[in-house]
Amino acid sequence: MNDFSYYNPTKIEFGRGKEKNIGKYIKEAGYESVLLVYGTGSIKKSSLYDDTITSLQEAGISFEELDGVVSNPLLSRVNDGIKIAKEKKLQAVLGVGGGSVADSVKAIAIGALYEGDVWDFFTQKAEIKQALPVFTVMTLAATASEMNGNSVVMKDETKQKYSIQSVLVNPVLSVINPELMASVPKDYLAYSAVDAIAHSIEVYFTASSHPNFNSRIVESIIKSIMETTEILIKDPDNYEARGEFAWVATQALNGLTPAGTAGGTFPNHMIEHALSALYNVAHGAGLSVVIPAWMKWYKEKNLPMFERFAKEVFNLEGADAGINALESWFEKIGSPVTLEQAGIPQAGIKDLAENAAELGKLWGLSEAYTPEVISAILQKA
Amino acid sequence: MNDFSYYNPTKIEFGRGKEKNIGKYIKEAGYESVLLVYGTGSIKKSSLYDDTITSLQEAGISFEELDGVVSNPLLSRVNDGIKIAKEKKLQAVLGVGGGSVADSVKAIAIGALYEGDVWDFFTQKAEIKQALPVFTVMTLAATASEMNGNSVVMKDETKQKYSIQSVLVNPVLSVINPELMASVPKDYLAYSAVDAIAHSIEVYFTASSHPNFNSRIVESIIKSIMETTEILIKDPDNYEARGEFAWVATQALNGLTPAGTAGGTFPNHMIEHALSALYNVAHGAGLSVVIPAWMKWYKEKNLPMFERFAKEVFNLEGADAGINALESWFEKIGSPVTLEQAGIPQAGIKDLAENAAELGKLWGLSEAYTPEVISAILQKA
Repeated sequence: MNDFSYYNPTKIEFGRGKEKNIGKYIKEAGYESVLLVYGTGSIKKSSLYDDTITSLQEAGISFEELDGVVSNPLLSRVNDGIKIAKEKKLQAVLGVGGGSVADSVKAIAIGALYEGDVWDFFTQKAEIKQALPVFTVMTLAATASEMNGNSVVMKDETKQKYSIQSVLVNPVLSVINPELMASVPKDYLAYSAVDAIAHSIEVYFTASSHPNFNSRIVESIIKSIMETTEILIKDPDNYEARGEFAWVATQALNGLTPAGTAGGTFPNHMIEHALSALYNVAHGAGLSVVIPAWMKWYKEKNLPMFERFAKEVFNLEGADAGINALESWFEKIGSPVTLEQAGIPQAGIKDLAENAAELGKLWGLSEAYTPEVISAILQKA
Repeated sequence: MNDFSYYNPTKIEFGRGKEKNIGKYIKEAGYESVLLVYGTGSIKKSSLYDDTITSLQEAGISFEELDGVVSNPLLSRVNDGIKIAKEKKLQAVLGVGGGSVADSVKAIAIGALYEGDVWDFFTQKAEIKQALPVFTVMTLAATASEMNGNSVVMKDETKQKYSIQSVLVNPVLSVINPELMASVPKDYLAYSAVDAIAHSIEVYFTASSHPNFNSRIVESIIKSIMETTEILIKDPDNYEARGEFAWVATQALNGLTPAGTAGGTFPNHMIEHALSALYNVAHGAGLSVVIPAWMKWYKEKNLPMFERFAKEVFNLEGADAGINALESWFEKIGSPVTLEQAGIPQAGIKDLAENAAELGKLWGLSEAYTPEVISAILQKA
């Protein structure tokens, strides 16, 4: 067991209709004004936008709005939010949407209390020391952003998709109502499943030390994500499966799975960020392209875990059988497993590798993952 | 999925030597004085007492001491602690020891800010609205008290072993250093294993709704506790196993396993509290007596889960096979599985049943668990 600090102070309010209390929750936490952040309008097609406004008004919370957050969220929109939060001296930020909205409100929360450029934190030029309190109401389960301090944002001009991590932007409170996720299209359900699996699987394979208990938790997460995804593909209104999927996805990246492990890294996320940045591929779709290719390239470095994975998750013998089964499952649920399926030309590999390798420098992965290595991995896709 | 609120703001500092920072941790949290609570002297046989005092002094934390907390902790000693905390206007409480010490500091933390009798909270005559901040350094892994808001205390005169639960007494911070647990005797290791299994197993069998993911987590906990216990019996200094055991025991009662389940209850704990109260049996030893008897009595009410338990934990077919395997395992590690082995006479069953049934009234179990039913269960032990 590696030494660790575990601290996750986010309160989760899980269940039907909980979003209607969001004003009350913010009030009880001691805040009187928020920046309300959302995406490109889907919350206005449902009653969620109206319910949120009503809840804030009833609780006496004043608010400003920032809409237009897109998937693979942009720094420019984050900066728009920071400007409003500063000008109006807002006390908190509330994101209503999916992972991109949650990621954006965290960046806004940090930037609102910083005089310089918030991108400084993403390039590790500045250290996060304070942030406005963050609240979220989730409409998509995938990133676990509702219960962690991670935020991924892309700088528009340079196509750098970089991340930050601080418990200061762990949401104070997040609402997970599975009903709000019932309208997620099937392709995004598939991408979400891939993302949740990816979050738990990276440390599982790359850690130099990984206690059995952690392995069991990861395998439980993967099996439950696969099981509930298959139910939801056939029956999108299945509340039980939708709820279990959402809560399992939260567990996949809230600090539980790596606690006590040593040496784990996130090379698949590093490579995928380049796919999203340069080709605007959905994050989960990019991951399902990268993961099987990476597994084929990496398996010899940790054969026992690949054999264990095959056995525990698919009841199959041998590393290759497990890799093939996962790849087939990604394909079966409708997520791409080749660059071609994701609409990325072979000719793009060089730029992808260079973009990913730049991020690798920040993540301490530049020795193992040179542009040549990343190119070789992507050739397998 | 049942609606739920999940909130566990306890910070865990896990690893070698972390207890030497306890003064710093308390200082960083903003407190300058504590009541230091410990047991009957084992921390003075090791260097833990001296290390704690040194750490507090170096951080400039003033302190008073309360020693003499026994297993199955007593209300009288809690009241002694409350008196000191009030008189000296201490800002926080620090428990250094096992579950009984952790439970005692929580009761002291609540009583120190209450004008009436702290027992009012245990009998549900008063509602917990405030408490001093709690810190713990654990020397035994079993109760998960280091990461929950539970406290169990026994009223000396009436032999009522009752409990409270409030997030207000979730420790602000707990230190788990597996090295501090290496000297735990083998019988207490066994009792601790039983306790951790008991914490996760009760809701697993009694819930009216139990998502597959929760079942997988419970099975992971049980398998990892069994696996690490067997290693530690042979090799008490195995740091990896000691650490994994400790962290898994924490997960067994920190809110993770029941989240999203419905209708779960704790009848084995209810009955066991009577054994501990009337015969001063160690909590885990009492549980290993009660659980197999309860399982034999209860199995027909939820046969699918008993069959699943047999399959997933022991790779055996049929409810009875699973129950027998668990009972045999308790015996193998040296924990009693009959009243006789625990030194409790058959003639004591009537009083035990009445004591437990009284607690059942507070826990909403009085209809299902009349004194007659509890007697029938204990007859099987």
